Order: sequence, then C-alpha cells, then structure tokens
Amino acid sequence: MKRALGVCYYPEHWPEEMWAQDAARMVETGISWVRIGEFAWSRIEPAPGVFEFGWLDRAIATLADAGLKIILGTPTCTPPRWMLERFPDMLAVDPQGNPRKFGSRRHYCFSHDGYRAASGEIAARLGDRYGRDARIHAWQIDNEYGCHDTILSFSDAAREAFRTWLAARYQDIDALNRAWGTVFWSMEYRHFGDIDLPNLTVTQPAPAHELAFRRFSSDQVMRYHEVQVAALRARSDAPLIHNYMGRVLDFDHFDVGRSIDIASWDSYPIGFLSDRLEASEEHKARYLHQGDPDMQAFHHDLYRAVGREGRWWVMEQQPGPVNWAPHNPAPLPGMVRLWSWEAFAHGAEVVSYFRWRQAPFAQEQMHAGLLRPDDVAAPGLTEAAQVGREIAEMPEVSRGTAPIALIFDYPSEWTWATLPQGAGFSYFRLMLDAYRALRRRGLSIDIVPSSVSDLAGYKLVLAPGLAKMPTALTTALTQTVALVGPRSNLVTDELSIPVPMGPDLPGLDVTVARVESLPPSARRAARGGGSVHHWVETLEGGAPTLFETVDGAPVVMGNDKLNYLGAWPDAALWDRIIVHLAEAAGVTTCALPDGLRLRDTETHRFAFNYGPEDTDIDGRKIAAADVAWWPL
Amino acid sequence: MKRALGVCYYPEHWPEEMWAQDAARMVETGISWVRIGEFAWSRIEPAPGVFEFGWLDRAIATLADAGLKIILGTPTCTPPRWMLERFPDMLAVDPQGNPRKFGSRRHYCFSHDGYRAASGEIAARLGDRYGRDARIHAWQIDNEYGCHDTILSFSDAAREAFRTWLAARYQDIDALNRAWGTVFWSMEYRHFGDIDLPNLTVTQPAPAHELAFRRFSSDQVMRYHEVQVAALRARSDAPLIHNYMGRVLDFDHFDVGRSIDIASWDSYPIGFLSDRLEASEEHKARYLHQGDPDMQAFHHDLYRAVGREGRWWVMEQQPGPVNWAPHNPAPLPGMVRLWSWEAFAHGAEVVSYFRWRQAPFAQEQMHAGLLRPDDVAAPGLTEAAQVGREIAEMPEVSRGTAPIALIFDYPSEWTWATLPQGAGFSYFRLMLDAYRALRRRGLSIDIVPSSVSDLAGYKLVLAPGLAKMPTALTTALTQTVALVGPRSNLVTDELSIPVPMGPDLPGLDVTVARVESLPPSARRAARGGGSVHHWVETLEGGAPTLFETVDGAPVVMGNDKLNYLGAWPDAALWDRIIVHLAEAAGVTTCALPDGLRLRDTETHRFAFNYGPEDTDIDGRKIAAADVAWWPL
Amino acid sequence: MKRALGVCYYPEHWPEEMWAQDAARMVETGISWVRIGEFAWSRIEPAPGVFEFGWLDRAIATLADAGLKIILGTPTCTPPRWMLERFPDMLAVDPQGNPRKFGSRRHYCFSHDGYRAASGEIAARLGDRYGRDARIHAWQIDNEYGCHDTILSFSDAAREAFRTWLAARYQDIDALNRAWGTVFWSMEYRHFGDIDLPNLTVTQPAPAHELAFRRFSSDQVMRYHEVQVAALRARSDAPLIHNYMGRVLDFDHFDVGRSIDIASWDSYPIGFLSDRLEASEEHKARYLHQGDPDMQAFHHDLYRAVGREGRWWVMEQQPGPVNWAPHNPAPLPGMVRLWSWEAFAHGAEVVSYFRWRQAPFAQEQMHAGLLRPDDVAAPGLTEAAQVGREIAEMPEVSRGTAPIALIFDYPSEWTWATLPQGAGFSYFRLMLDAYRALRRRGLSIDIVPSSVSDLAGYKLVLAPGLAKMPTALTTALTQTVALVGPRSNLVTDELSIPVPMGPDLPGLDVTVARVESLPPSARRAARGGGSVHHWVETLEGGAPTLFETVDGAPVVMGNDKLNYLGAWPDAALWDRIIVHLAEAAGVTTCALPDGLRLRDTETHRFAFNYGPEDTDIDGRKIAAADVAWWPL
Repeated sequence: MKRALGVCYYPEHWPEEMWAQDAARMVETGISWVRIGEFAWSRIEPAPGVFEFGWLDRAIATLADAGLKIILGTPTCTPPRWMLERFPDMLAVDPQGNPRKFGSRRHYCFSHDGYRAASGEIAARLGDRYGRDARIHAWQIDNEYGCHDTILSFSDAAREAFRTWLAARYQDIDALNRAWGTVFWSMEYRHFGDIDLPNLTVTQPAPAHELAFRRFSSDQVMRYHEVQVAALRARSDAPLIHNYMGRVLDFDHFDVGRSIDIASWDSYPIGFLSDRLEASEEHKARYLHQGDPDMQAFHHDLYRAVGREGRWWVMEQQPGPVNWAPHNPAPLPGMVRLWSWEAFAHGAEVVSYFRWRQAPFAQEQMHAGLLRPDDVAAPGLTEAAQVGREIAEMPEVSRGTAPIALIFDYPSEWTWATLPQGAGFSYFRLMLDAYRALRRRGLSIDIVPSSVSDLAGYKLVLAPGLAKMPTALTTALTQTVALVGPRSNLVTDELSIPVPMGPDLPGLDVTVARVESLPPSARRAARGGGSVHHWVETLEGGAPTLFETVDGAPVVMGNDKLNYLGAWPDAALWDRIIVHLAEAAGVTTCALPDGLRLRDTETHRFAFNYGPEDTDIDGRKIAAADVAWWPL
Repeated sequence: MKRALGVCYYPEHWPEEMWAQDAARMVETGISWVRIGEFAWSRIEPAPGVFEFGWLDRAIATLADAGLKIILGTPTCTPPRWMLERFPDMLAVDPQGNPRKFGSRRHYCFSHDGYRAASGEIAARLGDRYGRDARIHAWQIDNEYGCHDTILSFSDAAREAFRTWLAARYQDIDALNRAWGTVFWSMEYRHFGDIDLPNLTVTQPAPAHELAFRRFSSDQVMRYHEVQVAALRARSDAPLIHNYMGRVLDFDHFDVGRSIDIASWDSYPIGFLSDRLEASEEHKARYLHQGDPDMQAFHHDLYRAVGREGRWWVMEQQPGPVNWAPHNPAPLPGMVRLWSWEAFAHGAEVVSYFRWRQAPFAQEQMHAGLLRPDDVAAPGLTEAAQVGREIAEMPEVSRGTAPIALIFDYPSEWTWATLPQGAGFSYFRLMLDAYRALRRRGLSIDIVPSSVSDLAGYKLVLAPGLAKMPTALTTALTQTVALVGPRSNLVTDELSIPVPMGPDLPGLDVTVARVESLPPSARRAARGGGSVHHWVETLEGGAPTLFETVDGAPVVMGNDKLNYLGAWPDAALWDRIIVHLAEAAGVTTCALPDGLRLRDTETHRFAFNYGPEDTDIDGRKIAAADVAWWPL
Repeated sequence: MKRALGVCYYPEHWPEEMWAQDAARMVETGISWVRIGEFAWSRIEPAPGVFEFGWLDRAIATLADAGLKIILGTPTCTPPRWMLERFPDMLAVDPQGNPRKFGSRRHYCFSHDGYRAASGEIAARLGDRYGRDARIHAWQIDNEYGCHDTILSFSDAAREAFRTWLAARYQDIDALNRAWGTVFWSMEYRHFGDIDLPNLTVTQPAPAHELAFRRFSSDQVMRYHEVQVAALRARSDAPLIHNYMGRVLDFDHFDVGRSIDIASWDSYPIGFLSDRLEASEEHKARYLHQGDPDMQAFHHDLYRAVGREGRWWVMEQQPGPVNWAPHNPAPLPGMVRLWSWEAFAHGAEVVSYFRWRQAPFAQEQMHAGLLRPDDVAAPGLTEAAQVGREIAEMPEVSRGTAPIALIFDYPSEWTWATLPQGAGFSYFRLMLDAYRALRRRGLSIDIVPSSVSDLAGYKLVLAPGLAKMPTALTTALTQTVALVGPRSNLVTDELSIPVPMGPDLPGLDVTVARVESLPPSARRAARGGGSVHHWVETLEGGAPTLFETVDGAPVVMGNDKLNYLGAWPDAALWDRIIVHLAEAAGVTTCALPDGLRLRDTETHRFAFNYGPEDTDIDGRKIAAADVAWWPL
C-alpha cells in the first residue's frame, strides 16, 4: 500500500484564475489527492432543478491536469435554502422541541423522506455526470454524519418513522411492552401509534425506550446513507468514502463502513484535547499544543476496523489552530508532521489536510489552512511538504495485525449513555483508558468489532464495557488471553438484567453481585499498588482472584486465560493489569517515557514523542514533537 | 406502639407462581406489612373502563394468606397512556413552556379538572372493591407528591385555576394590586383574567406574584388530594397514608398530613447525600457510604409532626445502592440496620424497605432490592432480618416529647425561594444547620409546625428563617427559652417589609436594620470563636448583646429567654450558641464524637455511629455503622 | 460646571401626605435634583386613553415648591398590562423562541411598530403637558436600554424588520451573499425574505450574519429612541437624558448619545463586582464591600465621551446593599461618599442616588435607599449629606482633557462576541484590563470613540481590540504615541480577514500571521517580567521588537511612536508596557499602592482608596474607603 498526501479544496471560494496556481503548488508540496465539492450544493444547483456544472467541470479539469486525483463529495450536508421551501419540515428538532434552523450546516433530519430522496437525486446527478470520469478517483458521501449532535432528532418525521421501525422490530405491541418492561410504571402501550419520542418526559424514560430510539436513529443514518450509496454504485466504480468525525458515536460506523469502500476520519488533535476528552488539568496543560497522545491512534485503529479490508484515510488533518474548540492554541512545530506520520504508521493510505487555504470569510475563517489567507505558507505547509518528501522515500506500508485486540461496539456506547448509573460513566472514556494503558506499555493494538468470530491471531484481547457479548465473541475469546469487564455482558439486548446475572461467561465462575458508581474523588486502593475509581462491582464466584483491593474485595478474577475485571482501574492499576496479562499472553511490554508512543508495522517500529521535552528510547533520542522509525 | 417491618412489592412484575414463595420469605424475614398497587393502573384498568381485578384479588389473597398486612396504593401517579387520549391537556408544563410528556411517571398537572376527577374515580373503584376488606390494613394515596419537581406547572389549566384562586383570595383586583405592590413597575392589573403565571418574565416577577403562585400550587395539591381522600373515607375505615419524598418542599405537608392518618416518607440516605444536600467535599466523602448523619433524623422528626397524633412510617427504606443519584455507592455493612433502628428510635411504627426484589427491567433496574434479580439475598435482606429479630425482642416504643423544639414552616421555604437575596440561601439548609448543631450536642428534637400555640412542654425552641411569625407562636415562645432568626419575622404575609421593621418581637428590643448576603468564601469572625457567613443582619436596639463579631457587631441579642440571632453561624459558632442557650434552658448537652448521634425515647437512649470508624460514648464502644441502646 | 446631588423618587409608591416631608428632607440632605415618573405609566394612563395627571401635577408642585429641580422620565420601559391587549405580539422573544412575558419590566421588542408608536405617543402626551413647564429641568427617555438582555429579540417583528434593514444595507442579495461569504456552506440566499434570525441554527451561523443582526439590533434601539426624541424636542427645550446601565454593550451608546444632551449611567459598584466582572476570587474578596477600583471610573470616562460636550451624570448611585447580584454585601462605611466624589472628579454634573426610600414591596424591596422603609436614615443618607456639604464648599469642576486616550468602540464588542475564537474573549474585559493598567500607574484617561479624527491633545493613545480601524483614526494616531492591538484592525467591516492581513498600519511593518487562544491557566513568560495569556498573536515584519517572550516571540513591535501589541498581557506585563510607552510619550507615572486610584482635574488631584486598609501617597495618609484631594 502506498502512502499519499491529500488536501481539501474549495474552488467555489476562490477566483477561477487562482485554481491552476493552487493546483501546481499542491503538487509541488507533494500532495496527490484533492477533495472538492462537499459543501457546494448552492453552486451546483443554485435554484431547484437549475444545474450549473460548468465551474465544477473546469475545476476538475484544472486540478486533474495538474496531476491531482480527485475525491468528489456529495453536498448533502448543506442543503440550499430553497430546499426548505420544498420541505419546510425537513429540519431536525432538538430535545427541547425547537427546530434546528437553516444558517449553518447539517440542517436536516435523517428521517425526512423528502430530503432523503432529494439527497439521492443530487448524488445521482453527480454520478450521471462524473461517475465514469477517470479523474474522479473516489467519492465522499455527505460529510461528518453526526457532527453537531445531529443524529438524534425529535421531529414529527422521526416520530412517525420511529413508530414504523418499532412495529417492524417488535411486530406486536405486547412484545414491545414485555421487552421494555412498561408494566413498571403503567407505561404500557396499546398501539405503536401511542409511542412518542423519549424526550421531555417527567423523569427518565424507560431505558429500553431510549435505547430503541438510539438504535433507530443509527438505523436512520444507514437508511439515509444507502440511498446515496445506491445512486453512486449504479453510476460509478470509484470507491466510496465517508469522513467520520472524532468521538461521534451516535450511529454505528461499522454499519456505514460495510456499505462503502474506505473509512476516513477527521483528525483535530488539539481541538479534541480541549473539547472532547476527559483528562486532568495537568494532562491538558502538558499536551495543549500537541493533542492527547492516544486519541488519534485510537481513532486510526478504529477506522482501520471500520474500513473494508482495513482501508482507511485521514480525510481532514488539522494543519494549525482551529476555530471551534473552547480554546484554540497552535501546534508545536513538528506536530503536523508527527500527526501525519502517526496516521501512516497505523496504516492510513492517505493523509489529507484541511484545508488548502484559510478561508477569510464565514464560520471557519479562524481555522488555519496550509496557506494563510494572503497565500503565504503557514507552518503546516512546510511540515506537509517534509512529509511529502519522506513518504516518497519510504513508500510502502503493510497494515499487518497487532498482537492485541480491543473490542469496540457502538451499541455499548448507546447502552451506557442511556443507563450510566454514575454521572460521567462513558463507554468511550473507559475504552480510551484501556487503550492508553496498553499504549503506555508500548503495545500496538487492533480495534475489532463485537461481531468478530475469530480472534486466533491475537495474543491478548480486551473487551471492557461490552454491554451484551455475542455468543460468537464469547467463543472466540477462548482462542486467546482475554480480559472482559468492567460492565461487560451485564445486560440483555433490551437493556434489562439477565438471570443468571452477568457476566455469565462459560468457564469462568464470576458473578457481578452488585455495582457501585463513585464520585470522581473517591478511590479504593488495590493491594500492590494503584486503585479503582468511578465504577466498582462486587464480584462473587469460585474463580481465582488475581487482583484485589486492600480490603480483600476481588478486582480481577480469572484463570489468566479468561479474566474478568470488576472495576474501573486508575492508570497505575491498569498498568499492573496489562503487565500481568501480557506476561500471561507472552507479549513483551516496556514502560514508555511520558508522552512517547510506539506503533509497529510489519517491518518497522515508529516512535512519536507527544511530550514537550526531548526523550529517548532504546538509546535513541527523540526530540519534542518528533518522529522516529527503524526496522524491527 | 409496636414496631414492625414492611416491604414494597409489585406482584404485577413477577410471574404469579412466584408470589406465594415471595410472601413466605417476607414473613420469614420478619416482615409483616406489604405495600402494593401504587404503579399498577395499566394492569387494573388496561383500557378505559375495562377493569381487571382478578390478578389483584389473587395477589392480595396470597399475601394475606401468608400473614402479611396489606397497604394498597392508589395508582394515580402513573396514569395509563390512554388517559392522554381522554385529556390531551392533562400534562404539566415546565417553566420553559414545554409539556412534560408521557413515558415515565407523575405526568399530570394538579390543576387539571378532568384528571383530578379521574383520580377520584379510580380511588373510588378501589374503595368499592377493597374498602371493607379486612386484609387491606391501610391505603396509600398517590406516590411521592412533588417528586421530579412536579408541583409547579405552567399549563393552561394551571393558569385558569390560578386566576380563580386569586379571585377567591383577593376578592377584588385592587386588593391584589396593593398586596403585590404592582404599582412598582406599572404591573397593575385591571382584571384577574389579566394575570399570567410567573414564568418567562423578562426579569424576576413580583415576589408576591411568585409566592402566590407557590401557595396556589400547594393548595392545588390539596385540592387534588382531597378528592381521593373523600373517595376512600366514604368506602373504608382503614388509615390513609401518603409517602412524602425527602426534601420535597413545594407543597405544605402539614396540610396533607391533617387530612390523612399516618405520615410516611421515603428514606434514601445515600442518594440524598449525593443529590440533595449542601455539604463540603470532605463531608460528602466521609459519609459516602452512610448518608448524612442528620438528614434522616430531621425527616423522621418532621414527619412525626406531620402525622396525625405523631403517627409516621418510613414507607420506602433504601436497602442498598440506588439508581437515581449522580453517583450511587453501596451502604457500609450495617447501615441498613442502622437506618431502620434510627427510624424506630424516632418513633416510626413501620419501616418498609423499597423494594422486595430488584426489578431487572425499566427505569429502576439498578436500584437494589432486598433480593437480587436472581432471587439471591442482597446484603440488605440479612440486615432487615436482623432488625426483624431485634424488634421482636424490644417491641414497644413511646414517642415521648423532646426537650427541644424546632419550628418548621413550608411557606417560609417558598418565601425565601422566591426572594433569596443571596444565591443559595435556602430555608431548608438553614433549618438543617440548626438541627445539626443541636444534634452534635446530643439533643433530641421535636419538629413543630408554625401553627403551634403551646410550647410549654419544651425547654428550648428555635425558629430560624420563619418568614412571618404567627401571633400565637410569638406568644407561645414566652413559655420557653427561644432563639429566633436569622431572617425571622422580617416580612409580611404578602412578602413585603413591614413597618415597624422586624423581627418586632414583644419584649425584645431588636430591629434588623439591614441585611447582607455574602459569597460562600466570605466569613466574619465571632468574638470567642466561630464565625458567621452567607447571611448577616445589622441588628439595632437596646437588647443585650450575647454574641458579637470581632468588630463588635451584634450576632445574638436577647435576654437568655427570648433571643434573636442575626446571622448564619458556622458550625463552631452554632455549637457555642447552642451550649449557651441550653445552659440558660437547663438542658444538659454533650459534645459527641464526629458522626455519632443520639436519640432518647422515654425509656431508652439510642446511639448511632454514622462515622466510618469505631467510636465510643460513656465508655461504650460503638463500631462503625453500628447501633446501641440502653435504658435511660 | 457646578456639582450637584440628586435622588430617584417614586411619589406613586407613597401616600401623598408624605411627599412634602420627603421633599424637605431631600433639600436638607443637600439634594437639588429629583427624578420621577419613569415607571409610572399605569398611573398616568391606567386604561387606554384614560389619563390621570392630577397626582403627577401635585407631585411636581410639591417637589418644585421645596426647591428641587425635576427630571421627568418617559415610562416606556414599563408598558401597562393593557398594552398587550393592543399589541399581543409586542413582546421580545428569547433565543429559544419563547416570548418574554409581562410581569416585570422591559417587556417589549424594539422592532414592534405599534409599540414604538405608542411610546412616541406617551412621550408626546407628557411633552404636551410638561414640556414648557419650567419646573421640569430635564427629561429621561425610557430607562436602562438593554438591561436584562433586552436588545436582541428573536420575534416575528424583529425578523421582518431585519429583512428590511438588510435590503436597505445591501441593496441586492448577491451583495449580501458576497459580504457574508454564504458560499461557504451553501448558505446562499436568493431573496432577502429567505433570511432568518441567527438563532437556533445547527451550529454557529455565519459571523457576518450574526454581526449584521447585532448592528441591526443596535439600530433598532435608535429607531425606537428617536421617536421619543422627536416627540420631546417638539415640545420642550429641556435637556434630554438617558440612563445607561453598566456593562450593557448590545447597542451603540455613542449613537444614542449624539441624539440627546446628557449621558447618565447607573452605578452599582458592588453589584457589578459580583455579577459583571471577570476577576480572581482574591480580587473579589478584597473588594467585596467596595466594588472594583476601576469599573466605575471606566464608565465615568466612557459616559463623558458619550455625553454631548462631555456632559454626563450618575443617574442612579448605589446607596447601600442591592438586591440583584448573586450576593449583596453592604458597602464599607465611606464608600457611598467615595463613589460620589469619584464621579465628580471624573466630571459628573450630578450624582443622583437610587433611591430615596427603600420600597418595602415588589422586586426591589431588598434594595437599599437613602432611607429605610421605616423612614430611618440608612448609612447612605449620612454620607450623601456629607457630600452635599462638601460640594457646597468646592463647587466648580472643569472636565479638562486627560493626557491619555483609550479608544472605545461598540461594534468591536459585537464583533468579538460574534467571533471570540477563545471562550471568554471579551472586548470589554480587554479594554478594562488596559484601563486598569493605566490607572495602576496613576494616569487619568479620556475614553474616545473610534470616530475620532484628532488626537493631537493626547500624549498616548491605546486602541486594543479595535476590530476595524477607521482611516481617520489611523491617521490621527500619527499625532501621538500609540499602542494598537491585540486584535486590532484584523477584520473587515463584514467580519472577514482582509488581504493584506492586519493590522496593516501605515508606517509599521507588522503582520499578524496567526492567532492562538489559550485556556485560563496557560501563560507564556515575557522576557524581563510578566507574561501573556488568553490571546497570543504571531507577529511578523520588520518593525523593531520592544517586548518579547522568553522564547523570543515578539509581543510588542513598534517604533515607540506607533506600536502594535500582539497578545493579552497579564498585569505585570501591562505595567511594564505602560511605563515604557509613558516614558516615550513624556508622561510621568507612579506605581500606586494596591487599591489606590488617582484622578486629576484641571486644578486638583483626587485620590480614592478602594482598599480595605489605610494607605498613603506622597506622604498623605488616606484611610480605607476615604477620599482626598489637593491642588495640582
């Protein structure tokens, strides 16, 4: 697989006379891919049924003539103003019942039949014109599904669609009543038409009701998405891509991933640190100009799993300060290169910078580009050019298989978001904590969906927080050393407590008798070091205790093959557990300096120094914000 | 009076074949009362006018046959979905104007005429069938009035009823204008029909307007409640009960209490500590697994006052971790027993655990029961059984009279909620601070309504924060040593400042010339130790100064008989004031170890160790979470 | 110019028999002005078209007979309840789409045509009756425009008016599309009628859209205001006044100021400290009973600029504790006098206390007056009387010209509120930080609007945060030593980034290549002392570097005549910069003790000790909360 650089470009924002020069400069920078079109609906179809393809034809020609491969986006995340004249009720509705109005982007409800059809039509129009055009090397469908909390909509269209979805899922209303436990507070329904969306209830709605709505909402994304997939598949053989946004979890990316060819994501390390990460003030201060050392790698590994055959890109790479986080500092010199190389080391085919030139107007005018608004090179351009030179020298990468697997499951996120039981209990946070612990010990990781049925390639598998474990997964875990829990397999598919109570794993006599959620400052020390916090389960059963609290309460029970973790460890205890399990699994670990991270490909070891000071590993000095690699 | 245990049970949640075994096991645990039915409307009347009493008949028979006394609840806090077809406008409306929808519970507006009548009808139906059934030993009306902030509703029904209520109260609109001071900002009304609910105003509405709405809202609870009282009184001689929820203050419990026979409340010590209590982080950490040492006792004493002839129960006792607080830790071993005994020591007739078996489905699936979902005994069951054995050995208790009285007044809560003058000024918090101070000195307390006219039985009476003192109370205070203030008798009944200015107490020359509210960190030291915070009054007058700040500003002025406290003391100053007054009143105090609390009945002294470490008193060692008692 | 005292008085709140005695006591206190009428519409016109002037005639007579000069207010901030029967849609609408209801004050939308006309009519009625009455010495129009966030309204009336305003501004829709950059996310409009208000969008609206709405909203205030101006100008020669509220910035006070004769503002130092000021906890604790040492002076200097020919008053002066801040402590003894004298030292003609007697009813019953509700003198009265005696001894004051000018510009506030780029970036806060720094060095300051074209009278001019610098100002800056930045002249008038990029100042080779916003705890040390925080620009260009970070990044570049500041300095660095520039400008500075502030008139130096402890300057001891003055 060949590494390549790309860039996001908006010809409609610039005078046509600048295009050729821009294209030439991209190529000069070492860029070979360019994404266009995804926000340009009002220029492609300025009035209903009035199409203006001329400018787009010329833009494509100019870019392609310069030697660039084009990704063409469907512009469906930005329906023009006139679309609301056709469909005044197409807007999503927020949980308070207010329509989310026109004036920015993503102003549509996934459940609106009319807008879904209109999205298919514009995709078909583009497919008709460019589907067989060899200069179009890939398609991007829509843009960042779910960004700005747009998956859950409380519109009339959503209500109607939800009722239909429920009728299809449960067939008869008594089945729904049983599944949701509506007898609990006389919430029983007599008709599917009685069921409302789970917002604005007096106190929390039935968890199964909310979970059903979350599943429905994810399914509505697929239903919406597939109309465009069908339109393009019928008209083009170029690969289809979607660009997911970091820590957007309200729909199942694996579902979308299966329907298209390449996964991509939008990587904004410094924005995420400020806006989307639980971490101490000290941690946030230390990595203020670098981003969290594990957040990007986590998503890289996630999207390698989401992409068909492991194909994935970074579609938007932060090139400098952004505009949308609470605070927007600049990257340390070197970080743009580090982020790019980290993506490649995790198997990215393409790293595409967002955006070519900082737009001097509109919402993102304070978002850096590779060029400044006045066409002067921003620091990101220099680093991108360096990466361009470096990948030319080291072109091939195999994705390989890591020794460690981490099971990731979107419905588990929805399940625990529905029933957190402790303020701030977050599946994603738990997953990232586990991931961090593995990485602090130098390990490379594959993220794997819960639908996996063969884990033989892995030495160690972790499945924390997996709400309901599929049978095939339970079976596959016997192929390896596994750590399940906390909060794994404790509920049914309808979010109730099973009897026998979980985790109910064959071959492991452990029952979670009780759970506790704790306020942030509460901790219980573990014998031997570290402690547990946030979430503590009372474990019972005959399995040996591997870790316990100083009071003798089991924290990990298991047989070193199959093990259950009954609490949320702090970093020190995570480290001890990982070392213990890695030894049992025959995996070598090493304690890395703070901020240093490794990633092994089949042939090389890469090292990334996220820390703000120089460090070293194996005698190699690695400067702050620097990257190193050497053959394995 | 005989002590007894009870439990809350939901036969509709379990297969009928489990009922008999459950009943037998209850009896075996020492339980003699069982509450049923209060959430079962959709099973009793699955469609409008279609009644299914068979299952309930059989459940009653099974439970009674096992020897259990039944409390039957009216299910009016959970109207079925079809009720909304009859009354689409029956929902309460939140302060932002959104209807609070079906899908959980308490989805009704107290002012809706149709739903009020429907509630009376279902109560009558139940009365018709079971009113003379000797197996029904008590009735519970509705469930936790006011839980989930459901007293104040901004619906059309409420608006219309408010106008009617105002017309009845003020008779003519000029009287209302004068009472509310509407001349202030040209807010004068010409007709009662001009008056809106006091939400969504540009800035705060007239305080008297808001206070009137709060009084009206409390009255609407009574109006709603009395329909059910009438329906049941006509059909049954069994006592009527309501189960109040902790720190729900938006309606006058004394009003409800007078209309029924027994007060009960729902005691969730650990949930309250997390969710409903102002306290330092240190305090919350220390009592994380026990609950606050005074919160339960306060409510016990309150409901002894609310209950007719002092009759009161704990209807729902926390048996393990709950689900609804921000964080939900487990009780220390022993706490379920401690909480139960503390209730008995304060005069409870019955302590009833919520619930028998943890429901594996719906909103409360993470709320512990005495049994786990898989029928295994949870820790609470063992402790309940121990209490069952212990009360069998020590069956009698007299409620007696404490030496100390604390005046509690719901309208004062509404008054200061309407006009706090300092962020976080809370009448309840002030009352609890006073109560804590008394209890830290080992004192037993009666809570007494402000309607009291005879205090001769008490040696010392405290009336902090009592917005408007009734004349009878002012007179009664002369019978005893009294501490009035801070913020007592400073406003008229219509929430304006009287002239002469308060407290205007006969025989005490003190005037509150000015008040200040202070941010949380501000403190003014008192001469001799301790300090004042939150709220400081400037006191003037000829009465002797008993306590003062280091700058010489009076904090307590009085004659050791009638005294006025002009500030919010911290714990150290509260202790000094209590010791001083107790001496003046001839009451013996003792400084208790941290977390230890006492309660004297007529015959015994009980000691409760809320602390997480062993302690001792009078040479008796009391383990963490343990209870002790001995003859006085 | 003669100094005088005034007071706000509400005859409609008190029995008529008290008026004469109140008037006499005012005069005795040294008060010569009295403001009446501004909340009395429901008494003047109790029903539509029914006028009752008798009581007002008698009140005017009584007050004037006592020797008081009357300011008569138009009561348009408090439309009576019946006005809503005429105009049910006259209410402003909040950003969530809820009407802001009747029941307090300011319940109108500035864009409502009907209410605007009705406001003109009541002003005309008052003008007809009292316009030529010599006892009416001034008029106040409305009251505190913008208080309670009432400028931005999202009503239907506002939407329609906004479209009209846009059509007038941009003439054709393509011009608007270009100006707003709507091509960015296909936000292009085809008709002005397509444009909605910028609330409830999915993510932020186009900055130029929001800025246009803010400009429109300010213009709507003027449009509303001018109807009353016209009505009164036609009927009276008495000066017109408006009383602005502290830190209300949503409309352009300079616009309003140009249309009337005298600016006045409402000064609540302790309320502002609690509610409207970014400051450390330590700072807020130190000045809890005094108010911030610079907040009042800043507004004094601002309104001297807003008032025509520099004429300005304090219309409402805090006389004791207020009711509306989160916490409401009392002033230190002496502060009411200090605040009064500080206003005079900054050139106020009149300081008018709010209010005469504490109203015992309605929303402000806890707001102190000069008298208590029981007619006893509150501490403020004594201090006011002292000021009255003192000004009689020292009657004249010239406003003079300060050596330093600070440019203040309302549109810059709207610009950065629209596009803060860092949470908490506030133009006002930045301005106040600059102002504080100048004042800590003993300097007197003039605030000057950005429309200024002659700065020859100043030695040093600061223009931080000035979004877009007018050409005339850029030219005028060459007359003096100037400090521009941070964030000055970085955007176009339509809130986009200009090319060449800013600050683009003739004669100064500096370009802001990049900006960063930083979280509150982040700091970068400056070489030589102090540091920068919040906002850091990357400066490029050939100009000399005057200040830099320890890493060598320029912080100030310039030639000591024209200088650009590329970051937000902390107090220590501000001090160094001010000292450096003052030296360059030939202005003498002195480091003042903490809490001490100076103000020079043409003839005298005044010193104000805001600190809670005694201090001294030039060998003069100044007690806490005391004032001193001596000839220059």
